[in-house]
Amino acid sequence: MLAAMTSTLILLRHGQSTWNAENLFTGWWDADLSDLGRTEATRSGELMAEAGLAPDVVHTSLQTRAIRTANLALDAMGLLWLPVKRHWRLNERHYGDLTGQNKAEATERFGADQVKVWRRSYDTPPPPITAGNEHNPNEDARYDQIPADVLPQSECLADVVDRMLPYWFDVIVPDLAGDRTVLVAAHGNSLRALVKHLDGIGDADIAGLDIPTGVPLVYELDSDARPVEAKPVLDRALGDPEAIKAAAEAVAKQASAGAK
Amino acid sequence: MLAAMTSTLILLRHGQSTWNAENLFTGWWDADLSDLGRTEATRSGELMAEAGLAPDVVHTSLQTRAIRTANLALDAMGLLWLPVKRHWRLNERHYGDLTGQNKAEATERFGADQVKVWRRSYDTPPPPITAGNEHNPNEDARYDQIPADVLPQSECLADVVDRMLPYWFDVIVPDLAGDRTVLVAAHGNSLRALVKHLDGIGDADIAGLDIPTGVPLVYELDSDARPVEAKPVLDRALGDPEAIKAAAEAVAKQASAGAK
Repeated sequence: MLAAMTSTLILLRHGQSTWNAENLFTGWWDADLSDLGRTEATRSGELMAEAGLAPDVVHTSLQTRAIRTANLALDAMGLLWLPVKRHWRLNERHYGDLTGQNKAEATERFGADQVKVWRRSYDTPPPPITAGNEHNPNEDARYDQIPADVLPQSECLADVVDRMLPYWFDVIVPDLAGDRTVLVAAHGNSLRALVKHLDGIGDADIAGLDIPTGVPLVYELDSDARPVEAKPVLDRALGDPEAIKAAAEAVAKQASAGAK
Repeated sequence: MLAAMTSTLILLRHGQSTWNAENLFTGWWDADLSDLGRTEATRSGELMAEAGLAPDVVHTSLQTRAIRTANLALDAMGLLWLPVKRHWRLNERHYGDLTGQNKAEATERFGADQVKVWRRSYDTPPPPITAGNEHNPNEDARYDQIPADVLPQSECLADVVDRMLPYWFDVIVPDLAGDRTVLVAAHGNSLRALVKHLDGIGDADIAGLDIPTGVPLVYELDSDARPVEAKPVLDRALGDPEAIKAAAEAVAKQASAGAK
């Protein structure tokens, strides 16, 4: 059933960040990895090496937690020298003015039903980020080069799909040519957007799909950059199935309890 | 005296490697940083931040000790997200079949006079690397894409100048346009080759110039990518002058005692 020529795409969601433990809406805020997140990142590199996977090129978002995840994974593989490309289109969903708030604060301010819609609907973004928000990530120098026309002020998942796919088609897909292996180190929602595209998941179902942290997800793709085989994304995970199931449940529990 | 428009070039030689202590000819062998080297790398980032320098783009060799130096320096500056380009043309001088030998072994095998010529002449390369050399770096996957016509088998400093300058003119110089700041994290001999070009140092004098490790060297360049001001390279160093002088003397002592 395998195509004669395939390329390999590895998706890697960053490990735990320092803001996860505090249950804060993070989005474009540049929270770093926690110690646990660093351990997860190193382990993900070991898993790839054990599976005999060696990326040819790496893509990351502009956010430290994804970049550090890639660096630690590559270090574990002895592949720090790989070419790497970074782009804001792989960033986490922009949480608008929820950025920096915890769930309790957001619920008190806007009501539980409204917060649930912002967190889990496909097409309703939170209120735009305000200049007065002390965690306004748009002030960061790394985003200076983004034209105001496309710099997000807040995003729903549909917005993430729209801004992520051009990078997929224009930059990542060409890197897959020639049966190459590409590693994408990114975030829960930018990877969810990519999985939605690759696996053809509908708007109503995608919110229920949680990407486990620190677990490489391996797609074999045909020459049209489409999966050679259709299967649930968790079946693409490297590592101990029990550990992956536990990680996915932990992510789901965290998502239902609070922020991403 | 300052030109109205200048760009900034920062040269950074990696810190101490694990092979330095053992006095081994390293060259293209991928020795990693020692703990001291990591400390030097982090400190170099702090020095740049304290000087108000913020690179726009980073260039490294394909060798772990330069890449890790850049990563640690950028981490200290909060700039892990910068775009980075890597190329073998920034690698250390290829030491041919001396790779992996210590000075005592090399002297016993080839004689002290011959070893001195290989280490300090401008245009006499050591014997080419042999397939049987257990530290043959050319077998590494990172060099798979280099055509055999240009993959070095051994290099003198003149060879390093020849293979480094195309990368300078074609890749780094364009990145300097628009008054930008470019960080180049590389090696004693690839940086010596670049300093030779920038400062117009003659073939007979360049071997006497030692680049200190872990110390950012800052050039202001005009629109022709030429230094705005002529001065000794050590006067371009960031940090405490006494510490820099000590570091330069340590490098010179190490060079006179053994391998690079």
